[in-house]
Amino acid sequence: MPVGTQGTVKAVPQETLESLGAEIILGNTYHLYLRPGHQAIRRMGGLHRFISWPHALLTDSGGFQVFSLTALRKVTEDGVRFRSHLDGSSHFFTPEHSIDVQIALGADICMAFDECTEYPADRFRAEQSLRLTMAWARRSVDHFRAHQLEVPWFDPKACRTQCLFGIVQGGMYRDLRRQCAQRLVEMEFDGYAIGGLSVGEPRELTLEIVAEVLPLLPKDKPRYVMGVGYPDEIEQYARMGVDMMDCVLPTRAARHALLFTSQGRLNIKNKQFAEDQSPPDPTCSCPVCRRYTRAYLRHLVQASEPLAATLNSIHNLAFYLGIMQRVRSSLEPAGMRDLA
Amino acid sequence: MPVGTQGTVKAVPQETLESLGAEIILGNTYHLYLRPGHQAIRRMGGLHRFISWPHALLTDSGGFQVFSLTALRKVTEDGVRFRSHLDGSSHFFTPEHSIDVQIALGADICMAFDECTEYPADRFRAEQSLRLTMAWARRSVDHFRAHQLEVPWFDPKACRTQCLFGIVQGGMYRDLRRQCAQRLVEMEFDGYAIGGLSVGEPRELTLEIVAEVLPLLPKDKPRYVMGVGYPDEIEQYARMGVDMMDCVLPTRAARHALLFTSQGRLNIKNKQFAEDQSPPDPTCSCPVCRRYTRAYLRHLVQASEPLAATLNSIHNLAFYLGIMQRVRSSLEPAGMRDLA
Repeated sequence: MPVGTQGTVKAVPQETLESLGAEIILGNTYHLYLRPGHQAIRRMGGLHRFISWPHALLTDSGGFQVFSLTALRKVTEDGVRFRSHLDGSSHFFTPEHSIDVQIALGADICMAFDECTEYPADRFRAEQSLRLTMAWARRSVDHFRAHQLEVPWFDPKACRTQCLFGIVQGGMYRDLRRQCAQRLVEMEFDGYAIGGLSVGEPRELTLEIVAEVLPLLPKDKPRYVMGVGYPDEIEQYARMGVDMMDCVLPTRAARHALLFTSQGRLNIKNKQFAEDQSPPDPTCSCPVCRRYTRAYLRHLVQASEPLAATLNSIHNLAFYLGIMQRVRSSLEPAGMRDLA
Repeated sequence: MPVGTQGTVKAVPQETLESLGAEIILGNTYHLYLRPGHQAIRRMGGLHRFISWPHALLTDSGGFQVFSLTALRKVTEDGVRFRSHLDGSSHFFTPEHSIDVQIALGADICMAFDECTEYPADRFRAEQSLRLTMAWARRSVDHFRAHQLEVPWFDPKACRTQCLFGIVQGGMYRDLRRQCAQRLVEMEFDGYAIGGLSVGEPRELTLEIVAEVLPLLPKDKPRYVMGVGYPDEIEQYARMGVDMMDCVLPTRAARHALLFTSQGRLNIKNKQFAEDQSPPDPTCSCPVCRRYTRAYLRHLVQASEPLAATLNSIHNLAFYLGIMQRVRSSLEPAGMRDLA
């Protein structure tokens, strides 16, 4: 899922995302709550209408941004008080509030409010954090079930509803992760995410945790690994049975002139590309590779032209979506056999 | 003509320009000479290929940028010495050098090297400046005729060649303008531009100078007013018989959140648009007005999202191109009668 933090996948128009075959994008609850505000978005009919994206949307719970972006935050059993990274104003988020905001935004998939355990965390800290996440998951699901008909696009005649996913935490402790997964499954979420990964731990550890947790999550519901990853990682996770992933990497790297290609990573700023008239990735058929050269992209980066971010992002997203497309095609027959 | 200073119309992909019906864009010789360098562009087959724009291109002479952007410039009869605004390096431009650079870039239309007379300028200064411009025009045309087959895409079997336009200067002195126009016409350029306008003079004066000079320029050759203007101005000039105009206004204003619409100018940052769900211009059928709301564009600007520049620029360019399209349709029958 391309990440559209503030209601836009940075530098890429919605019509381009559609043409690349993106079926779902992610919005960040924390950012949209602060600006333009969830009540404004509710009054305008929800996030789909506000950003003109008539396809699937997912909003995170805001928890991760509260923990990574804000100052002076204070966590209690009830929720978390924090100061906005924009203007320093004080806010209090509880599981109920996160769900209210997400219902107002009206994404197709909401996430339970969790505490993302930092890395490294000792066992005592990880247990404490997990207890909070599980209590908040219970409160998230209860509040969501009680209020989900308040979504701005609610239509009693349509069968469209919002979904709520739970998030498995537990730091790098396998038994805590297992315990969390089991408890969340009992709460009957519509899908399950594995959170608290890609927070600085070695990559082998990320893989181990995913491998540990994944079999405990229902196969007939979406299973989502949050915040990953590099091209080879997303392929690996998809082949393990992960259904969904999100990552800022393709777009953030693009804005820093890093292109992912079938031949590896290219730092397109590099002088060696100054007169390279080949496409960014000769095996890629994205609109950028069909039309532009490495030399031109390098020039745009060198000249600080805004088109650099746009074209680099389009290519990287096409590359990521292409990986998932190929994995999907190669897995589908097996999946069909599995169900039969 | 949308302006693509550094080989890109800022924030707008070439395929979008095509879809808006742009038939010609402008590149700035001064910028492209400094970065990536005209020799590099020549080696890559010229500017069309380098930026992937298989339509018409015009390059200016570099004169205007040398006079407006650079420090420590020293003008002599031979040419102008200046320091790069990028790295302070010293360069010397003569009419011959400007033409060499423009032949290397290979745009369809090149411009004679001129001195843009500042405003205000007293009569003595304007006369001096004009003498230089006329001498440089002669040298530009001579050098161009001698070297135009050196264009990187030269093909003896094709009938495609570069064109060279002369630039009428003369400050705000009508008799100097007339004198310049007559002398340039004698030099038999492929087209004629009126330069040195929109340099700070009152708008009525710009109009007077255009009205004075235009009838002196051959009707069967393109007549180009440089660096204008606001939507109502470009319509007015087009109806007076001006064939070509260029201006950074639609794209620069867009990057500063100013939209041109059939209802006047909108500063889309304005709070009044925070929940305005109408399109930027309700009578416009551009891709932005068909899909996005004022509220969304305002949000993108407020959140400093790069998509703001892209969408605002697309709308403003569509608005400008739409004006010219309508003027053209309304003038064509008369033009046909005129020829018959």
